[in-house]
Amino acid sequence: MTRADLALIGFGNVGSRFAELLEDRASRLAADHQLTCRIAGRATRRTGAEYEGQPCRDPFEMVQRLAASDADLRIVVETTTLDIRNGEPAIAHVRAAIEAGCHVVTANKGPVAFAYADLRDAAARAGVQFLFEGAVMDGVPIFNLVRETLPAVTILGFEGVINTTTNHIITSMEQGETFENALARMQADGIAEADPSLDVDGWDAAAKTAALANVLMGAQLTPHDVRRTGLDTNTGEAARAAIARGKRLKLVASARLAAGAVTCIVEPRELPAGHLLAGLDGAANALILETDVLQRIAICQLSGSLTQTAYALLSDIIAIARCPQTP
Amino acid sequence: MTRADLALIGFGNVGSRFAELLEDRASRLAADHQLTCRIAGRATRRTGAEYEGQPCRDPFEMVQRLAASDADLRIVVETTTLDIRNGEPAIAHVRAAIEAGCHVVTANKGPVAFAYADLRDAAARAGVQFLFEGAVMDGVPIFNLVRETLPAVTILGFEGVINTTTNHIITSMEQGETFENALARMQADGIAEADPSLDVDGWDAAAKTAALANVLMGAQLTPHDVRRTGLDTNTGEAARAAIARGKRLKLVASARLAAGAVTCIVEPRELPAGHLLAGLDGAANALILETDVLQRIAICQLSGSLTQTAYALLSDIIAIARCPQTP
Repeated sequence: MTRADLALIGFGNVGSRFAELLEDRASRLAADHQLTCRIAGRATRRTGAEYEGQPCRDPFEMVQRLAASDADLRIVVETTTLDIRNGEPAIAHVRAAIEAGCHVVTANKGPVAFAYADLRDAAARAGVQFLFEGAVMDGVPIFNLVRETLPAVTILGFEGVINTTTNHIITSMEQGETFENALARMQADGIAEADPSLDVDGWDAAAKTAALANVLMGAQLTPHDVRRTGLDTNTGEAARAAIARGKRLKLVASARLAAGAVTCIVEPRELPAGHLLAGLDGAANALILETDVLQRIAICQLSGSLTQTAYALLSDIIAIARCPQTP
Repeated sequence: MTRADLALIGFGNVGSRFAELLEDRASRLAADHQLTCRIAGRATRRTGAEYEGQPCRDPFEMVQRLAASDADLRIVVETTTLDIRNGEPAIAHVRAAIEAGCHVVTANKGPVAFAYADLRDAAARAGVQFLFEGAVMDGVPIFNLVRETLPAVTILGFEGVINTTTNHIITSMEQGETFENALARMQADGIAEADPSLDVDGWDAAAKTAALANVLMGAQLTPHDVRRTGLDTNTGEAARAAIARGKRLKLVASARLAAGAVTCIVEPRELPAGHLLAGLDGAANALILETDVLQRIAICQLSGSLTQTAYALLSDIIAIARCPQTP
């Protein structure tokens, strides 16, 4: 039996659902993966940090205590919220964990969107894993899909609908709702944030796009390098005009490799009715990968939830248990 | 560097494309996976069997010679054609290879559709891998997707369009072509077989359905246990009637777990326009997995080719090189 000690940095909705899922799947982890996980420490901005019930000065001290554990695996689980200016404090948390010799799993887009190559190289030097399946499309495998199941394939580009809030808003506006009403309803339903600009202005999609381009295509971009157009009060009319022409408007995130450089764009785009992305309803996400050997393949998340983000963290932890060394 | 010796049983279109792809990706396999592959033997019905240039009595003698190789990995690559009555001779080839201590990769549906549990257990006893990504949706990862990236997830059912010939025929008939003309054109284009009954009567889809149910859902079925309705001369009218109602007719392969038993069905089914499978054009395939944790996720192959089937074999070989022990 492999024994894993975990320290959680961030314990909001995702973190607490992760703790529930861990308990729910405990017997399965033991039976199928000979793995037993224990949450040894927790750090939140509101309640501070503790490890084994003892208070810590800050998350960094908690990481040092985890690093001293005699468990088979020491894993930091990072789920703080994204700061779109620079990806902090998540990057500092991830770096500290790696340098202390702990594995890291995160659902935060910041580290991969702002500092992927650095953190990947640091993890390789430290002989630990740095995994982040939850950064894009929750628990639906994207990064693990390409790494584990598409060896010797080159990703030439991608095109996706990867932000749920804007997809919900556009779908509502197609049916005649105003931008303001659609947004207010999303906020009341808990789908959109109190400050919706991260979603509506395309920043969330841009961060995911940079993350995908960095990891899958070897780019070294930040979300600020993505050509970005969000939704505005004119989007509803554009969405209804598209419908009238038998098409659909979607906030499309895309990347393309040309002349050795990766260009990333997030923008509302009119798609023909037969396009795979055109058919996605509000809650659905999908990513089409353009590859050399397999041409175009797509993976779709037909419904999203907090449990799925929590599962992304769990699937990364199982990946570490299967292969604790950096590949 | 890991050195793999391969023996190919079957060397038709898929086998020869595989040999080309192996050469094309050789430097990438060496650089990314420290793997060098050499085709040491070949057996076909037409030309007989040879190993290292020396003739063999039959494929079984070739397998014995491969088993005596001092390479790091000894892998049998099985690509004979499916016999829908019983899955032979592929099952006998796979069993002989496993019992001789060789790993096996195959694009043949027979072994997984007729004898999965037996062959899986035999491989576990022999300490070798038995992989078959190419049996369904060519090189698009299905089996490897679930095994490698969806740990601790239970598959409750699936629904897919997984036979390209029938999807082409239905799409053509929607546009007014007769069944006979559509089929003749597919045969002229090399998409349908000279004997099209395997596709048209739903046997190919039934074999894939049994393979998926056996591997992903723990069923122990054969293609003959799948409730199967193929296409006939009335399908064109049904397809056009569906279009007139704003729907699409598709040959849908599905499985469902209920009361501890897995029920599999292949049949033409009318789907609402917004359904993910409804939008697939002739060459596209897709599989929707119903899961416990991630609800519904889908993987789509937007275009198919022989190279993609060849890639399935290659991706399985790389998976063996990464993890030569049975999990």
